[in-house]
Amino acid sequence: MTHEIAVIPGDGIGQEVTPAAVEVLEALKPDFEFVEAEAGDAVKDETGEALPQETYDLAASADATLFGAAGDTAADVILPLREAVDSFVNVRPAKAYPGIDAVRPETDLIFLRENTEGVYAGHEDRLTQDVSTLTRVVTESASERLAEFACDYVAGDDHDGFSIVHKANVMRETDGLFRDTVKGVADENGVETDQVLMDAFATRVCLDPEQFDVVVCPNLAGDVLSDLAAGLVGGLGLLPSANIGPDRALFEPVHGTAPDIAGEGVANPAATIISAAMLLEYLGYDDESDRVHTAVEATLEDGPRTPDLGGDASTEDVTAAIIDRL
Amino acid sequence: MTHEIAVIPGDGIGQEVTPAAVEVLEALKPDFEFVEAEAGDAVKDETGEALPQETYDLAASADATLFGAAGDTAADVILPLREAVDSFVNVRPAKAYPGIDAVRPETDLIFLRENTEGVYAGHEDRLTQDVSTLTRVVTESASERLAEFACDYVAGDDHDGFSIVHKANVMRETDGLFRDTVKGVADENGVETDQVLMDAFATRVCLDPEQFDVVVCPNLAGDVLSDLAAGLVGGLGLLPSANIGPDRALFEPVHGTAPDIAGEGVANPAATIISAAMLLEYLGYDDESDRVHTAVEATLEDGPRTPDLGGDASTEDVTAAIIDRL
Ligand SMILES: CC(C)[C@H](C(=O)O)[C@@H](O)C(=O)O
Ligand SMILES: CC(C)[C@H](C(=O)O)[C@@H](O)C(=O)O
Repeated sequence: MTHEIAVIPGDGIGQEVTPAAVEVLEALKPDFEFVEAEAGDAVKDETGEALPQETYDLAASADATLFGAAGDTAADVILPLREAVDSFVNVRPAKAYPGIDAVRPETDLIFLRENTEGVYAGHEDRLTQDVSTLTRVVTESASERLAEFACDYVAGDDHDGFSIVHKANVMRETDGLFRDTVKGVADENGVETDQVLMDAFATRVCLDPEQFDVVVCPNLAGDVLSDLAAGLVGGLGLLPSANIGPDRALFEPVHGTAPDIAGEGVANPAATIISAAMLLEYLGYDDESDRVHTAVEATLEDGPRTPDLGGDASTEDVTAAIIDRL
Repeated sequence: MTHEIAVIPGDGIGQEVTPAAVEVLEALKPDFEFVEAEAGDAVKDETGEALPQETYDLAASADATLFGAAGDTAADVILPLREAVDSFVNVRPAKAYPGIDAVRPETDLIFLRENTEGVYAGHEDRLTQDVSTLTRVVTESASERLAEFACDYVAGDDHDGFSIVHKANVMRETDGLFRDTVKGVADENGVETDQVLMDAFATRVCLDPEQFDVVVCPNLAGDVLSDLAAGLVGGLGLLPSANIGPDRALFEPVHGTAPDIAGEGVANPAATIISAAMLLEYLGYDDESDRVHTAVEATLEDGPRTPDLGGDASTEDVTAAIIDRL
């Protein structure tokens, strides 16, 4: 069976790293059907729309989507695209690789971020000249769906359970509902959990990242705390992510458009290629996925390396080296 | 002129570090009038109330309050106490001290955290069995008051301006109002600012804390990001804070009750004593405040040290050493 893969390079280095990841996929799965579409600042400048309807529709119908990055329009692109694939969880591994300079080289975390609600679902109002409000939403059903995913996730691998991160001492009703629902589902499934306040998590993960493994959290907490973990592993340059929905999914590097180096052909393709490895796993190609992970890790360790990692190789050199090692 | 200082030790090591800080204050300002009051888990167990009305009233009328820590009832104690002093800004320095093991020894940041609204002012509702909401509030007036404080703050010392941290790409109306109002006040005052998304801040501060100095942010962002900075400087053990209102203020260490060591007389009093130094500065005793800072820094560097810093001194030993060095 073949699969239709939507490819949305976007802006800046998205235009360089996304084709690199497609090359890797083509090397492994020559039968994948890639369909490219536009999104981001450039298409907005041309057409007035950061996310053209046909791009949305493509993501909503393809088996999987590979997205690069978008500039100023990032939120206008990525939030609707997450909706297009009905993504209820954003899977964000944050792992330090051997040989890469990291603040905390022992970091190896997986964030499972709620991907539909919290302040992101927020309806906002300017009530008066002085007063603005945002209604944050937390539902039992979204928390349950996330928790079921988390239970499956930790069952499939050698994880001891997961941490539930929240701020229920202040957001008692909403984060309380999140925490209690996630814990309830975990208990029913015999999965161990611990509960950590999001501020305490921020301190503790810096002091000793090894005390955490899989971290389940609301949408904004997941955004901020996974970016914190990115800082601990040496930056956003190597972090992949998967936006998983019930029938399709979207994969994207956590980094942005890197305008300072865009167009120079030296962007590090690793995060997007690891995202492609997550795509392969999602579609059931575990063996191919493992091969990509192994090839990327070997290349990160032994080179060639792009300038962000102290080398002088091009995106193409690194991509070719990864493909060689598949 | 004498000053009335409310002293609320609270629970756990609050009972040990608060008297230590009072000793330091007494050594410098024998005319201060200290009035002690109860709050926290212990008084809740006895009376059913974590924050007795007389404690609230005392904080609302004293010139300044020194608070230790509270256990499970922390939110029920500290949030109303911040209200009692009408505190609109929480000043949180996060600085790594020489000789203290830190993830990022070059960290030297000041967070100016909005202290009245955001999700903390949030009205919550359980709309249905499935759906809960929290209404987050951001006002122009609170943002203005914070920004004016920030402008004064950076004028008083050798700061180049401040960073405005927000998530206005998602919370467009509310954090947009915050960002634009703070920026507007800074512009009027000729104060330089830059703007950083809170997730990007989390990554960047780990990679290079020296790129930031004074950080102005909404309530929850300030909570999480200052705790992140605490992780970078080696833990909450040394972090003081000041909740400033127009006519009075409340000072507290950022750490909690440390139940594991409470009652053993070995709690590190440094964070509370540095909070007392902030109290002295607030009341206009700049010279005395400097003397406390200098004495604490010398003691952190040359000892004696409590066990959390690898020493075997008691709270009393450390306090005596600090008083000796005043
Ligand atoms: C661009 C922005 C809306 C987005 C988010 O906040 O989710 C980004 O920070 C991310 O984490 O993918
Ligand atoms: C106890 C809690 C309500 C409080 C907060 O979130 O403000 C604490 O974390 C702090 O930062 O002082």
